[in-house]
Amino acid sequence: MNINFKELANKYQTPYYVYDFDHITKQYEELKGAFKARKSLIAYAVKANSNLSVIKHLADLGAGADCVSIGEVKRALKVGIAPYKIIFSGVGKIDSEIKEALESDILMINVESDAELNRVELIAKELGKVARISIRVNPNIDPQTHPYISTGLHENKFGVDIDTAKRMYIQCKNSSSLDPVGMHCHIGSQLTQLEPIKESIKIVTDLVRNLKAIKIELSFVDIGGGLGIVYDDETLIDTKEYAQAVLENMFGLDITIICEPGRFMVGNAGTFVTKVLYEKVNGNKRFVIVDGAMNDLIRPSLYNAYHKIEVLNDNEEFSDCNLVGPICESGDFFAKNVQLQKTQHNDLVAIYSAGAYGFTMASNYNTRGKVAEIAVEKGIDRLIRKRETFEDIIALEEEFIK
Amino acid sequence: MNINFKELANKYQTPYYVYDFDHITKQYEELKGAFKARKSLIAYAVKANSNLSVIKHLADLGAGADCVSIGEVKRALKVGIAPYKIIFSGVGKIDSEIKEALESDILMINVESDAELNRVELIAKELGKVARISIRVNPNIDPQTHPYISTGLHENKFGVDIDTAKRMYIQCKNSSSLDPVGMHCHIGSQLTQLEPIKESIKIVTDLVRNLKAIKIELSFVDIGGGLGIVYDDETLIDTKEYAQAVLENMFGLDITIICEPGRFMVGNAGTFVTKVLYEKVNGNKRFVIVDGAMNDLIRPSLYNAYHKIEVLNDNEEFSDCNLVGPICESGDFFAKNVQLQKTQHNDLVAIYSAGAYGFTMASNYNTRGKVAEIAVEKGIDRLIRKRETFEDIIALEEEFIK
Ligand SMILES: Cc1ncc(COP(=O)(O)O)c(C=O)c1O
Ligand SMILES: Cc1ncc(COP(=O)(O)O)c(C=O)c1O
Repeated sequence: MNINFKELANKYQTPYYVYDFDHITKQYEELKGAFKARKSLIAYAVKANSNLSVIKHLADLGAGADCVSIGEVKRALKVGIAPYKIIFSGVGKIDSEIKEALESDILMINVESDAELNRVELIAKELGKVARISIRVNPNIDPQTHPYISTGLHENKFGVDIDTAKRMYIQCKNSSSLDPVGMHCHIGSQLTQLEPIKESIKIVTDLVRNLKAIKIELSFVDIGGGLGIVYDDETLIDTKEYAQAVLENMFGLDITIICEPGRFMVGNAGTFVTKVLYEKVNGNKRFVIVDGAMNDLIRPSLYNAYHKIEVLNDNEEFSDCNLVGPICESGDFFAKNVQLQKTQHNDLVAIYSAGAYGFTMASNYNTRGKVAEIAVEKGIDRLIRKRETFEDIIALEEEFIK
Repeated sequence: MNINFKELANKYQTPYYVYDFDHITKQYEELKGAFKARKSLIAYAVKANSNLSVIKHLADLGAGADCVSIGEVKRALKVGIAPYKIIFSGVGKIDSEIKEALESDILMINVESDAELNRVELIAKELGKVARISIRVNPNIDPQTHPYISTGLHENKFGVDIDTAKRMYIQCKNSSSLDPVGMHCHIGSQLTQLEPIKESIKIVTDLVRNLKAIKIELSFVDIGGGLGIVYDDETLIDTKEYAQAVLENMFGLDITIICEPGRFMVGNAGTFVTKVLYEKVNGNKRFVIVDGAMNDLIRPSLYNAYHKIEVLNDNEEFSDCNLVGPICESGDFFAKNVQLQKTQHNDLVAIYSAGAYGFTMASNYNTRGKVAEIAVEKGIDRLIRKRETFEDIIALEEEFIK
């Protein structure tokens, strides 16, 4: 990455998110390449970073989209992703969302419960449509990651167990409004161990074979997202080994592999850049206060997530501090007990690996406008989302003052 | 509270926030009444719920505003709160915010560090203005509350210690651009113990007297917000005893008391209402999935906060479950291991005590639009914020797709 954060700060003000689109390209090509021995679809998990220009960039590379709300489906369609490359997942689809998904004729609806399958069947029948279905299997495997982002254990809300899945596939087969086309499984995010993935793929493909034996022939296996990235010093899953582990299990099956990475595509493409306002010392504790805050990037507060941080000045006097934002909550911090050099008013601070689950989780807490988003591609920067103004923030409530 | 949630759901769809404005009135009157023996200003902490109509309602009752960003100041001004009732607090004020606050001629800027005082002085000088200053003292007292919302200990970023404060007041006195008018202290939120408040008021008023002895005469003591509310079965601080404890310490001082409650005013006025989509059982665990999610109300995920929950149906078959939203995160829950009755598709669920730090922290995660906000006053409901549409969500990025 070779981005001049200072130039961007002068041009667009702070705080901002900047995304290196060339990095996104590289990540996409690497993963797509790993699966080249097979028909595959990389369905980008839009939730990770749903800026329209980011999705468009991936669309242009050939990516599909894994969506978890009709809003995300609309984003994908808006930037020109073909309906047959769009998947609609999620544990809680609203009737109107199911209806719109069916009308848009997307690739498949990823169903996560018995009750939901019944709703989809009902709505498809009403519309006189056949709903292409995939079922999310919960393989009950511990992905060894943060409890908030682990999703493959029974004790969480995702997917259904093997026996339920089997029953649901039979229901699909027997219904004139349902067409079972795929199987889905996703065990968690920021995965760095291949073993749990292997185990769950094994469980999934066993079930695919079982179904084949009873004449339910699926065309797609969606192996989920979850590939980890380097935030600190993680050892990553090798994408070739990952693909190999998947392909081995598919032997003899005529299946298109779908993979739905989010973080892997965009996480390390993004940097959150903020400006130093003040330093202060309370008791023995040094605080560096910046103009960005938890409303802009909530991962440190919410998950205690680590982000590599750099102050962009030449000082060599490092000392321990907390890097915090202006919000009136002790939970408003980017890092605690981190070694940073002495700062001056207006020094820039880069918070790396902020491309995934950064801007998408931003709020207007403390009536702070959402920040600008910038893309850099082949050395050229451009705005991809305007900084939100006070007028934007109050737009939907202003008329009701009486 | 006598609000017909079903009627509102039919009229405005779900999910929604509804606020009982009569409850807000009652809370305001109770607190204002407790301080009737003195000149006092209840400066509502806008961050708790910053809907313009909510602020307007409090403004009409006579409240001022405690603001932590220029956006909040603008909200207060917009609904007609007089500048002399507006305070601008927060640890990280941006130059442009300080400038605008000075130009708006608000009551005072609450300064939280040495470095900030210097900035305010500089900017006031540039503008040829005199900045009315209050200084936030960090009394180093443990409020015995959640670590994320405790703010009165040295190890956090808020305020300055007594000695620093004293130096800063002297700097104010010696500056032609600064006018020391107040002292501020806020030790935390959701306080249920009077003792820590008493101790900190004692520390603050001792300092006020010390300053008086050296001819720095303050006009305002801002005792902060933080009064707790009942979420579950908390025993609350009695507002009369609270006022009494404050007034006792003020004996012989000609001081207007400012109090800046947020949660106390609006917390129990608000209910978040959501609709059941599905029930499912994974392993031994029952899940009730609703159309609201952590992006609408993040307190359970972020603070592990408890909210009383009621399913609005007549079933009597209760059992243990997790109440969760549709977002693809295990952290997306409203309650874990809660006893709720069996539900049907479309049953309503009321999540109480959601008026403070609910909507204000909402995000568009998973491209979910922010929900509608409704006011009920004297039996009459009205919309106070429109439900956000897909078009609203993408408005600031659409033009940049290329
Ligand atoms: C079903 C599903 N697919 C894909 C993803 C994307 O995960 P990641 O960003 O870790 O690749 C998630 C993340 O929550 C998910 O729940
Ligand atoms: C300085 C200050 N004042 C007032 C408040 C309002 O607190 P509460 O809503 O608990 O009354 C807060 C809360 O964070 C605060 O930081």
